Amino acid sequence: MCPVDVRRRLRINDVFLLLIILKFGLHAVDAVWPLPQTFTSWTERYPLNPQHFHFGYRGRSAALEGCPVLDAAFKRYFSLIFPDYAPGNDKLRIREDKPFSVEIAVDGHYCESYPTEDSSERYNLSVSAGQACLNAETVWGALRGLETFSQLVYQDDSGSYFVNKSDIKDFPSFQFRGILLDTSRHYLPVQAILKTLDAMAYSKFNVFHWHIVDDQSFPYQSRTFPDLSSKGAFHPMTHIYTQSDVRRVISYARMLGIRVVPEFDSPGHTKSWGKGQLDLLTPCYRRGIASGTFGPINPALASTYQFMESLFKEVSSVFPGSYFHLGGDEVDFSCWRSNPYIRAFMQKMGFGDDFAKLQAFYIEKIVNITTALNKTSIVWQDVFDYNERRSSLSVVEVWKQGCYLCEVRRVVKAGLRVILASPWYLDLPGPTHNWARYYNVWPLAFSGSEEQKRLVIGGEVCLWGEYVDATNLSPRLWPRASAAAERLWSDEKQTSSVENALPRLLDFRCKLLRRGIQAEPLNVGHCRHEYQGV
Amino acid sequence: MCPVDVRRRLRINDVFLLLIILKFGLHAVDAVWPLPQTFTSWTERYPLNPQHFHFGYRGRSAALEGCPVLDAAFKRYFSLIFPDYAPGNDKLRIREDKPFSVEIAVDGHYCESYPTEDSSERYNLSVSAGQACLNAETVWGALRGLETFSQLVYQDDSGSYFVNKSDIKDFPSFQFRGILLDTSRHYLPVQAILKTLDAMAYSKFNVFHWHIVDDQSFPYQSRTFPDLSSKGAFHPMTHIYTQSDVRRVISYARMLGIRVVPEFDSPGHTKSWGKGQLDLLTPCYRRGIASGTFGPINPALASTYQFMESLFKEVSSVFPGSYFHLGGDEVDFSCWRSNPYIRAFMQKMGFGDDFAKLQAFYIEKIVNITTALNKTSIVWQDVFDYNERRSSLSVVEVWKQGCYLCEVRRVVKAGLRVILASPWYLDLPGPTHNWARYYNVWPLAFSGSEEQKRLVIGGEVCLWGEYVDATNLSPRLWPRASAAAERLWSDEKQTSSVENALPRLLDFRCKLLRRGIQAEPLNVGHCRHEYQGV
Repeated sequence: MCPVDVRRRLRINDVFLLLIILKFGLHAVDAVWPLPQTFTSWTERYPLNPQHFHFGYRGRSAALEGCPVLDAAFKRYFSLIFPDYAPGNDKLRIREDKPFSVEIAVDGHYCESYPTEDSSERYNLSVSAGQACLNAETVWGALRGLETFSQLVYQDDSGSYFVNKSDIKDFPSFQFRGILLDTSRHYLPVQAILKTLDAMAYSKFNVFHWHIVDDQSFPYQSRTFPDLSSKGAFHPMTHIYTQSDVRRVISYARMLGIRVVPEFDSPGHTKSWGKGQLDLLTPCYRRGIASGTFGPINPALASTYQFMESLFKEVSSVFPGSYFHLGGDEVDFSCWRSNPYIRAFMQKMGFGDDFAKLQAFYIEKIVNITTALNKTSIVWQDVFDYNERRSSLSVVEVWKQGCYLCEVRRVVKAGLRVILASPWYLDLPGPTHNWARYYNVWPLAFSGSEEQKRLVIGGEVCLWGEYVDATNLSPRLWPRASAAAERLWSDEKQTSSVENALPRLLDFRCKLLRRGIQAEPLNVGHCRHEYQGV
Repeated sequence: MCPVDVRRRLRINDVFLLLIILKFGLHAVDAVWPLPQTFTSWTERYPLNPQHFHFGYRGRSAALEGCPVLDAAFKRYFSLIFPDYAPGNDKLRIREDKPFSVEIAVDGHYCESYPTEDSSERYNLSVSAGQACLNAETVWGALRGLETFSQLVYQDDSGSYFVNKSDIKDFPSFQFRGILLDTSRHYLPVQAILKTLDAMAYSKFNVFHWHIVDDQSFPYQSRTFPDLSSKGAFHPMTHIYTQSDVRRVISYARMLGIRVVPEFDSPGHTKSWGKGQLDLLTPCYRRGIASGTFGPINPALASTYQFMESLFKEVSSVFPGSYFHLGGDEVDFSCWRSNPYIRAFMQKMGFGDDFAKLQAFYIEKIVNITTALNKTSIVWQDVFDYNERRSSLSVVEVWKQGCYLCEVRRVVKAGLRVILASPWYLDLPGPTHNWARYYNVWPLAFSGSEEQKRLVIGGEVCLWGEYVDATNLSPRLWPRASAAAERLWSDEKQTSSVENALPRLLDFRCKLLRRGIQAEPLNVGHCRHEYQGV
């Protein structure tokens, strides 16, 4: 009999929960990564026969058959759970004929269509003889539970499948667990993005931050401004993301419970925009005459804001999520300073010589455009740092090295939400065994009130594209990003030891290989199934 | 009319040769990597139609139809030259109907069966209207010429194929151009090795140094001592190289003109050997009693040399090349020192407390075994460093960091041949743009006589396996290894500028991607055909 309600059961059982860190049990029961908040496991195990294995909705579930996210997940996880099963050919090997079913119940929000920043990912999973009961508050929580269940199943040497009696109550420590991919410095084929989304789901990441355009290229094919990509992409046909490509990425991510946050970084990092949009960038001057080169977006022209409003209106309709990343980092003032019209505008506005004020003026207008479109803006920390009027800001992403927790503290003290990225810049190559560097981060290790700490909504792994493309994206990301994933999902106290984490991470890497993810080795050794996709 | 003889033509034309460094011509004619010794190219270009394109043997060629190495190469290079050609489907696009043939003549050594260290790789390639004449002294030289020809062909935006009028006279600066793969720290599936061999041929590497066993695992399945892999491999069935696997690798390499040099490193680096061969390793002692742990191979027992002779006899018959790498590096004396039987043996032999003498004694016996098997031994520099009687040595591989050219000088002064590896340890990850570090090496930049410099027979890129397996082998190797390849093949004076090399290397990386090799990006940018094998 499956229990009826996530929250009630949690309350009832909390007192009795016995936490077992399954260190010695790694060989009997493969580990789960990231570690669930509470995880009890027994040595009692149940054989699984793929021919008598079923996923099903419980009668009381709010989501029922026909819920596309879960229906598709059942198919996907069946293949992940039984990777070498093909109907008909291993009847002989698996003698078990008792049925086993995973029964799902979703409490509320019938088949929610798109995950939000407030979507619960909480789930309870209880595995006993003949069945696993998976209760969640939303379909997104059910997805996380299915991932956990898939990691609990293991094969013995003869290839038979087993799952141990287990009881799991789980929820993320942080609500925002993102990965940034940069498709401007190098174009990433859609297939590479989809593969990354798959791997993200295995580590329970829930945000794909799509740094889609930058100085180097503008691959986003805009309906409103087609010249942006036809002139600003590396190639107007082969190196762009069409509307259909973008929809495909968003829809694929949604099925995995991953939100897509687009970033259209401005006013700096926009060189490629200028190729397809005249008069958008600031002409730079040398010795009083226009030099033919261009700087950041021109904040002194009304046409700039008309353009940005049109573009953002389109982008807001294309990306269904509520977050919109506005960038705002690394603005070089020298071109603005060289331009007499910009300087005249500064005088008119009373900014004096303070270009930070000009930048703040620009960002505020852009934030207002975004707010009017009913989106929550995220900005890089630079915007917070130079902006005296911070009330219009919502979410600040901390990315600079140095004392990043000092910055986190400053931002939450100002009452704003924080996403932490500084310690997770994975594009920098490094020996993979440095994974511990990404594991030993604790975003809340600063002095502040509980309320302030709640403003730290999560963190993000950044894989900038200067030296990364489809050839090396996966090994550079995995399994180091998984170290960050556990930091963002799991209970800090239970996951403070690198030594305890290593065997579980080694096991998880092998699972990634089995699932076709090109995850680098962490040290000397082997996996039963090595990467075969050569 | 194709010219008749490689050597004669070289002599006749040398005076008239005009060297054109094709810097400005990169867009019209794609570059060749590594740069040929002399390369003249004209803007005159000839369209190629795959339907009217043929490879053929010239009547005077010593190698004729039925020579397996060349027959197979014709098929392989046809696909590489016309990557998107499928019979029937692009008749319309390519209107050219003039035939084009590549005519091959090999001067001597009819269809040589296995490349040796003395095999000539020299070739002349002359491309004119309707034909390319490729003359070489051996089939191996013909393979290098085919690779060059394949790199000369390019496509315009409409997809039509062209080759420019060209005249190339080419030969390697160094005879030994190797890549080391380590299949002990991580097992590499055979497919990953074959793919690496393909990529090696594209950069004109000619030696695969197979560091096949080490402390961590013994994947070589010996006919004579099957326990070595059944007990010493990571897994006795899935993580081994069967005799058939090894033959496959050797035969695949041979078809690409690549020799396979096996390394069975001893007396250190042999922990995994001990699992399948009793009494081979030295028992270590603590406080006078055997501790249960083991050190290097036991050099004091006659049975050791009987075993090594049997094993090496087998290995020598399996690997047809003349080189055999004996290792000999990093021997830890502490276990030998702890063992009373070893100390007694030292006294008996008059070695006193000098364990270097014991090691030299061991290596000399192993070298003699190898010599008796008609193989030339290669040893790591350690053997040269501690061995006072160096006369038995042949080839020394310099691998330590620091002043490696000082070591090279010492070795050649002792009259021994050198392979340089120190500057090309590519397993260490690093920003790919550091490729210049591997390019800016010149193995002969030490003061010595011409005769001494001739003893530097080449160099080797080492990809140790501690943090490398099939998931990241390719991006870690390519294109950085190609930088070393040009250093070892091309004329130093013409390839001394990193700046001039960059655009050619960028172009070459795009060719690697087109051929399915996962070569990392060197900087921001794009290739017409990005890596699609995600």
